[in-house]
Amino acid sequence: MKKLILDLDTGIDDALAIAYALGSTESELIGITGTYGNVLMEQGVRNALAITDLFGHQEVKVYKGLPHASTKDSFEVLDISAFIHGKNGIGEVSIPESSRDAESMSAVDFIIDAVKTYGEDLIYIPTGPLTNLDAALKKAPEIKDEIGRVVLMGGALTVPGNVNAWTEANISQDPDAANNVFRSGIPATMIGLDVTLQTLLTYKETQQWRDLNTPAGSFLADMSDYYIKAYETTAPHLGGCGLHDPLAVGVAVDPTLVSTLAINMQVDVEGPTRGRTIGDPTKLNDPDKSMQVAVGVDVPRFLDEFMNRISGLAKNS
Amino acid sequence: MKKLILDLDTGIDDALAIAYALGSTESELIGITGTYGNVLMEQGVRNALAITDLFGHQEVKVYKGLPHASTKDSFEVLDISAFIHGKNGIGEVSIPESSRDAESMSAVDFIIDAVKTYGEDLIYIPTGPLTNLDAALKKAPEIKDEIGRVVLMGGALTVPGNVNAWTEANISQDPDAANNVFRSGIPATMIGLDVTLQTLLTYKETQQWRDLNTPAGSFLADMSDYYIKAYETTAPHLGGCGLHDPLAVGVAVDPTLVSTLAINMQVDVEGPTRGRTIGDPTKLNDPDKSMQVAVGVDVPRFLDEFMNRISGLAKNS
Repeated sequence: MKKLILDLDTGIDDALAIAYALGSTESELIGITGTYGNVLMEQGVRNALAITDLFGHQEVKVYKGLPHASTKDSFEVLDISAFIHGKNGIGEVSIPESSRDAESMSAVDFIIDAVKTYGEDLIYIPTGPLTNLDAALKKAPEIKDEIGRVVLMGGALTVPGNVNAWTEANISQDPDAANNVFRSGIPATMIGLDVTLQTLLTYKETQQWRDLNTPAGSFLADMSDYYIKAYETTAPHLGGCGLHDPLAVGVAVDPTLVSTLAINMQVDVEGPTRGRTIGDPTKLNDPDKSMQVAVGVDVPRFLDEFMNRISGLAKNS
Repeated sequence: MKKLILDLDTGIDDALAIAYALGSTESELIGITGTYGNVLMEQGVRNALAITDLFGHQEVKVYKGLPHASTKDSFEVLDISAFIHGKNGIGEVSIPESSRDAESMSAVDFIIDAVKTYGEDLIYIPTGPLTNLDAALKKAPEIKDEIGRVVLMGGALTVPGNVNAWTEANISQDPDAANNVFRSGIPATMIGLDVTLQTLLTYKETQQWRDLNTPAGSFLADMSDYYIKAYETTAPHLGGCGLHDPLAVGVAVDPTLVSTLAINMQVDVEGPTRGRTIGDPTKLNDPDKSMQVAVGVDVPRFLDEFMNRISGLAKNS
């Protein structure tokens, strides 16, 4: 059975990613590592604990990760992140705080330990900055050859970025860490804006959750409506909100949901396009491709899986 | 039988594109339209006339196109173009001037006429700026639905540009014209740096031409060696020169040489990434895709076709 670790800056679509993972019984969510981005790392960890509680999965352990980018010494939530996810990260919806605490082991040590324990069976799913994975690779470089796969939400190869014309939000938080990960040779699938902006959630689906009349269903509906409403301002042409983080989980569980391009990637860390995810021109003719970039997605099938798995979880919690 | 028009700023790889087209007996080169870029339009037209003469194909008519970008009123050859292609565009190699002149009909009118005459059978292959095609589409917009296909060499989707980090040379000459073409809905295949930098020519191949002991063989060898030598300075990591323009002809003749991504493209015309070729985010979820972008190429098969067709032509001329 595949073992999943989610690395989250638990925001709204991160919460949906937790629900998707918990609703996927063919794999096991063995832990959540916390990062910064949509919210402060500490807030994201509190959200992850509360959300796993709400879904009745108190067994999922949560680990604190690094609180800021590898090249910085602090982090503040951007106004646009607070606008999209709410100040509390979950659309200003109130759910009970967890009585649990984060584990004492660090996220970085947990990632390394999990690779040593599960090897090829482990899929690590970062949906925020790649700071924790970069640190793990620096501490234990050999894990790149031992892990099953990284399936990351981040970047944009064939479409513009969402921070500026060339940068996607997760990568922009720590381009240096992302570049180290991309060039490390670790087997990774990039789930970028290329595909996540094709997978849209609308009020029609959130109404189905509301109709479940469960605490989890109401939480999912209220939180997601906040997110869809923010998208009406930030990306009105889409007609819904992008299912960024859940798609990464979906592909981790079932890689056939996307078509991919095999390519050796880099992140521009210098010059005017800092933060851009792009093919590494010096490895264009290298027959060994360490990365797969998703360039197509089976939208109806993913949305079906997304609704079935999350509604199945939420109707009982 | 497919009818081909080459739109060339006849430079070195444009000359190889002519040779590839003339060596492809399953299709007919019905004309060459002249554009600016590697050389001035007038010089490119003179080169095209002389090269078709040298290859024994005086029947190929050559038409003068627009001499500068749609948004400018003049054009000067960049130093880097002269460095790569030589001042005369063909690596400072001397071949006899043609006794023929360009046709009196303009390139733009010839393109429109050819679409009206051949319709679906016509493939238009621009390997320079898209200024002529943009002008033809402005004069006769309906040709977008009547032409068989455009197979263009230009742009870079999954790799950096070669003018700067985000712009490829042909597109950079007239981003506005290219954006108009990309967004027009005309069926187009983009053969960009993504694939052309994978198809490399080395001194090993040029020696085969030299060994033919024909005027055309010597011309091809001398000219291409100049190009390979320039690449040793501009892109030493490649180990050869990119077969940009011939690959576009190759795909026009045999589309199975590349794998493509169906995507609606745009060219950034404003902001810091002016000249970038990228997916149009407002048409990401439009099921109708007017463009195909080549993202993979069967390198051994293309090189085989390239050498067979061009050597076959050059051994008899």
